Amino acid sequence: MLPQPIKNFIDLFAKFPGIGPRQSSRIAFWLVRQGPAKIAALRNSMEDLERNVKICRQCFFVYAPGRSDDGLCDICRDPKRDQKTLAVVEKETDLVTIEKTRRFRGLYHILGGVLLPLSKTSEQDEKIVKLRLRALEERLKNRNFEEVILALSPTTAGDYTAQEVARILKSSGLKITRLAMGLPRGAEIEFTDEDTMVSALEGRK
Amino acid sequence: MLPQPIKNFIDLFAKFPGIGPRQSSRIAFWLVRQGPAKIAALRNSMEDLERNVKICRQCFFVYAPGRSDDGLCDICRDPKRDQKTLAVVEKETDLVTIEKTRRFRGLYHILGGVLLPLSKTSEQDEKIVKLRLRALEERLKNRNFEEVILALSPTTAGDYTAQEVARILKSSGLKITRLAMGLPRGAEIEFTDEDTMVSALEGRK
Repeated sequence: MLPQPIKNFIDLFAKFPGIGPRQSSRIAFWLVRQGPAKIAALRNSMEDLERNVKICRQCFFVYAPGRSDDGLCDICRDPKRDQKTLAVVEKETDLVTIEKTRRFRGLYHILGGVLLPLSKTSEQDEKIVKLRLRALEERLKNRNFEEVILALSPTTAGDYTAQEVARILKSSGLKITRLAMGLPRGAEIEFTDEDTMVSALEGRK
Repeated sequence: MLPQPIKNFIDLFAKFPGIGPRQSSRIAFWLVRQGPAKIAALRNSMEDLERNVKICRQCFFVYAPGRSDDGLCDICRDPKRDQKTLAVVEKETDLVTIEKTRRFRGLYHILGGVLLPLSKTSEQDEKIVKLRLRALEERLKNRNFEEVILALSPTTAGDYTAQEVARILKSSGLKITRLAMGLPRGAEIEFTDEDTMVSALEGRK
């Protein structure tokens, strides 16, 4: 009943992170309703993304190559960053959140996803994470890092991934830390879950 | 800190229905991570959408024009459909859901959105709905419809929009109906809200 171009778009777009077939359909129809100009604007924006954004060969963050492109992002290229501390994060938006605090001056390593015990990760995503874990091992061999912060979310997937990374780095002799758990700002003790409460108590100071 | 093409994409994409700045960022980074081939595939799919999908001039559903394009979709062009009954729906996906039942053989009119009392509707979307309401008036003047079904969701926005449509059609002398409210299949009476329960009781048969 639906025109083939719509069906194709819906199928393709439904595979985007956080988007299912229902939202994909809604967006497809909405796009057609907005008219060709809107669709063209989005296509152009995507072409710009495709052409002018690269992934750092060292930490896998994004950057726009300048005149001299050495394959490194602004953070990796910055000699003022602390070269001894490395934060392993799941994704780019995590890096952005950490950077906003201005309290971390070390370098990053973006895994591009998390590992899940019962592989809910799509194959494509898992391949990326595994490649980047191998790159992490190499990176730690060749540099003088002292500490690796496993800056992964305290969720089931984050915990599992942190364990995997810790296992890989075990023999490196590096100091391995994780972000502190405790009450978030604004939390009400009454409604705090047990895990968080335990961490808040144990980490008191 | 972020490359300009990423920022632009995030801004543009955050305005899509159901997508906020956070999901937009996540998708932008995910796209870059997938590489140029994936981005190009999506761009091509969008170009196909832009070129080969049109909106029916009568009911505003989508269609792929064949050799002879009279501006009408498959439903409007089908002489076997009941030309006396018109269902006014909010969006294309609602039409698809109704078509799947095979119990409705009339024609449709897609508003392309709902009206909200305290205009939460974006200006662009409201403009579309108002244009299509005017088209609905014209359409009813020139045809021999007998019944208009206001097939709008029983939500605050759906109710408000239904009222608006009913107000516009008041003087037309057409029979105006709304979809029945009651218990959905699988509902537990214990957890059914009062409005639904009242409708279920009043509509008993």
